[in-house]
Amino acid sequence: MSTTCLPATEPETAPEDIERLLALAATAAPWWARFTPSARADALVAVADALDSHSDELVTVAAEETGYAPARLSGEVKRTTVQLRMFADRVRAGVYLDVTIDRADPDFVLGPRPELRRHQVPLGPVVVFAASNFPFAFSVAGTDTASALAAGCPVVLKAHPGHLRTSAATAAIVHEALSGAGAPDGVFAMVTGRQAGVTVLRDARITAAAFTGSVRGGRALFDIAASRPTPIPFYGELGSINPVIVTEEALAERAEEIASGFVASYTLGTGQFCTKPGVLLLPRGADTDQVIDLIAQKAREITATPMLTPDIASGYEHRLAEITEAAGTDLLVKGLVATDDAGTRQVAPSLVSVASVAQLREAADVLLEECFGPAALVVLYDTEEEVEDLLAGLGGALTISIHTAREAGGTPGGERYQRLVELAQQRAGRVVFNGWPTGVAVTHAQHHGGPYPAATSTQTSVGTGAVWRFLRPVVFQNTPDEFLPPALQEGNPLRVPRTIDGEPEQVSSTTTEG
Amino acid sequence: MSTTCLPATEPETAPEDIERLLALAATAAPWWARFTPSARADALVAVADALDSHSDELVTVAAEETGYAPARLSGEVKRTTVQLRMFADRVRAGVYLDVTIDRADPDFVLGPRPELRRHQVPLGPVVVFAASNFPFAFSVAGTDTASALAAGCPVVLKAHPGHLRTSAATAAIVHEALSGAGAPDGVFAMVTGRQAGVTVLRDARITAAAFTGSVRGGRALFDIAASRPTPIPFYGELGSINPVIVTEEALAERAEEIASGFVASYTLGTGQFCTKPGVLLLPRGADTDQVIDLIAQKAREITATPMLTPDIASGYEHRLAEITEAAGTDLLVKGLVATDDAGTRQVAPSLVSVASVAQLREAADVLLEECFGPAALVVLYDTEEEVEDLLAGLGGALTISIHTAREAGGTPGGERYQRLVELAQQRAGRVVFNGWPTGVAVTHAQHHGGPYPAATSTQTSVGTGAVWRFLRPVVFQNTPDEFLPPALQEGNPLRVPRTIDGEPEQVSSTTTEG
Repeated sequence: MSTTCLPATEPETAPEDIERLLALAATAAPWWARFTPSARADALVAVADALDSHSDELVTVAAEETGYAPARLSGEVKRTTVQLRMFADRVRAGVYLDVTIDRADPDFVLGPRPELRRHQVPLGPVVVFAASNFPFAFSVAGTDTASALAAGCPVVLKAHPGHLRTSAATAAIVHEALSGAGAPDGVFAMVTGRQAGVTVLRDARITAAAFTGSVRGGRALFDIAASRPTPIPFYGELGSINPVIVTEEALAERAEEIASGFVASYTLGTGQFCTKPGVLLLPRGADTDQVIDLIAQKAREITATPMLTPDIASGYEHRLAEITEAAGTDLLVKGLVATDDAGTRQVAPSLVSVASVAQLREAADVLLEECFGPAALVVLYDTEEEVEDLLAGLGGALTISIHTAREAGGTPGGERYQRLVELAQQRAGRVVFNGWPTGVAVTHAQHHGGPYPAATSTQTSVGTGAVWRFLRPVVFQNTPDEFLPPALQEGNPLRVPRTIDGEPEQVSSTTTEG
Repeated sequence: MSTTCLPATEPETAPEDIERLLALAATAAPWWARFTPSARADALVAVADALDSHSDELVTVAAEETGYAPARLSGEVKRTTVQLRMFADRVRAGVYLDVTIDRADPDFVLGPRPELRRHQVPLGPVVVFAASNFPFAFSVAGTDTASALAAGCPVVLKAHPGHLRTSAATAAIVHEALSGAGAPDGVFAMVTGRQAGVTVLRDARITAAAFTGSVRGGRALFDIAASRPTPIPFYGELGSINPVIVTEEALAERAEEIASGFVASYTLGTGQFCTKPGVLLLPRGADTDQVIDLIAQKAREITATPMLTPDIASGYEHRLAEITEAAGTDLLVKGLVATDDAGTRQVAPSLVSVASVAQLREAADVLLEECFGPAALVVLYDTEEEVEDLLAGLGGALTISIHTAREAGGTPGGERYQRLVELAQQRAGRVVFNGWPTGVAVTHAQHHGGPYPAATSTQTSVGTGAVWRFLRPVVFQNTPDEFLPPALQEGNPLRVPRTIDGEPEQVSSTTTEG
């Protein structure tokens, strides 16, 4: 309770500074929107280059602040810069303009139809709330920032208090790289402090928000975004328990591999992943006890690793206590918690068994809510219908994983599991087969989201599709070429892909060379 | 105040009936989602065919209820069925599955990458709030219903009280056609009554909402959707003043045409269009008074026509009184209001002048809010900067129209108006040149939406793009072919367009024939 004991871990950006940077962002917005695709792509690449060249310094600071191993952190910097370059490639190719043209049609069945030419324009300044658990890939220059900048939106970044020095160092690099690439002042700024984040979110100049974090925190911010005089889209990635279902065939084929894979996945990064598998559903059978023993044994072998912040560690211990107090649960592995000399909480994995699917469903409000940290549940099911009913009643999840036999002929075929797959698809954004949900590939097809509370929108927050969150369509009707934005002009001077009357535009090779 | 004088114009669907149809919709959802694209397209075409073949009866009922002329109404039925057929074509072609596949890449720069296959799945049952002003095209079988069904979502339709008999007749036809096409019971249902609408919107089985109507009504429903335990997307098309800017050159070239066009547009359908041009901005000049006289004269020539409901007529009279009480306004044409023998309010157009752009901005909260009905403002501007500043401060609009010279060389070129066009693009969803905003073409490129309060989302509610509102992505990771939905299977048995590793899939002619 005494502020002398608790250092002010989250200093608040001063109101006058917030006002100044919001004014700058608003002024910068039309300038940044006006950048040609290639100029904007160049700026993103400049940020990626700068981060790559400062990777070692950034990793050093982040290792001190987060307790993550340097190897993991340098991989994360790489992921961050690969993302920036992927967005740059798509921007350069003009993909995000989504140009769609319908020619005038004087004979249209409903009467003469005007010419319509549509493209996508940036929403305006956006606020990004950085995540705790990825100090690079979902923080200052992470996918939210990269995708908003790629869309042509200035970003006001609310730093996560768990890694403020890393954030400041990253922000300085981003800022300098953007300036060097000719981006106007105000295209990127960082604030710190909870109140500062709320002030920015409420500001009329802000047009969208992105967030990665807890259900409670995310919902509170979502409610603010929705209740503004002018509501704005709030792209939140909140909580998910990421259930994993193991079929009989899979268990018969590779029990040990499943045990190791599960423990490795749920304890990765001290269990501080949005995609941590929180519940493992095993078929009850003659050997199941041995499998559970194996899982427990492997969990005990994992040494304690640090949690990101004291707050997160306390939250984890509180949640774990709640879980083990629920009826029908048994704490199979009690992971030791210790505080090291630097005051960081080191936590070893815990494992909890739940007696039956019925028990799991009975205490759903405790057991089927995300527990952020290295704990997971193991539950035995008796019938496939039981698992299906569980899925049907589940809140939205980022992922649902299904383990079937890998060997051809080992699994009874798609039809038997058709309902399971369909239910997985209904409740999750990603369905994983014979693998683990941690590790979210950055590609075009990726979808990181899912029904609420996994996400607060239908959009993805990972992969090249994340840009669409910050764009909106505008259509020009019967507009003379000289008044059209370049991408919409008849001659297609930017050489962007376009759809004309529902079909891809055919660009002759001579035209492309022109 | 006495219920004996005021008939219950909006009977409430009984709670037990609401429960029954919501349960049916939830049961129908997975079945309807499972329809192949061609089977779902067939069902949409069956609805279109049925409506076309009952067009005369529907028009007769709607003419009695709305006061619209039969020619307009039969055109609207045609628009409704053309929309259904366009959505059917796109469904059949598999466009809305948006299949995107990224092959596994063991050498990816961030480490081995799994195979990812993404498509779009329907959200689930949706509620559609019908509009008052288009008893067909934005009502029971209108674009919201058509696009939700096309996406694979069951629809619970909340009828508009202004045309309940038309709604019931349309609903019966839709229901029968869907049944005939093999759609499960519960794919379409209708409720009536304000409370019924709210009950449905609050129900946990409902996954999205679409609405066309007023800012006040729409915002109230938006707030309910956002404050649910599980918030859902609310696709509202609310209010818009649709400003029209006339440049000096345009006025010099065709003052009379502009005067006629403006009056025809703002009085169309007794001014009851979302795209009614509410404000005409004219450059102040030697002849401007004559132009305004001409507009007033043309407005006086328009005879009184009925408004949709007594409530809408009262609302209009109230708004018009507010406007004429604002400082700097002058009621140039006072349109007569009369009640005919059937009790319908017949309204002739009104025209209000505002002394200056400064006066307009001063009373923005009254003058720059939509007035639903046949009244419009004419405002003189002195400089282009004045217009630009007005646009910069404007709430979102569905449309902004700009009149420039049609003759080549008559206009000083795109550069002079670059800022005006850019601001129009920032504040509107559609920018119209040398034309009027009423009449919204149904095409692929169309965008009917815009920044709040024009719309509550970035999505369109007109055109083939409206379907995306009711879909969300799901990605399958490393999934054996037998467990994949058909559109994602390696052999592409549904022959849908797919993007593989960022490029369109090349389908060989032999494969297509297979």
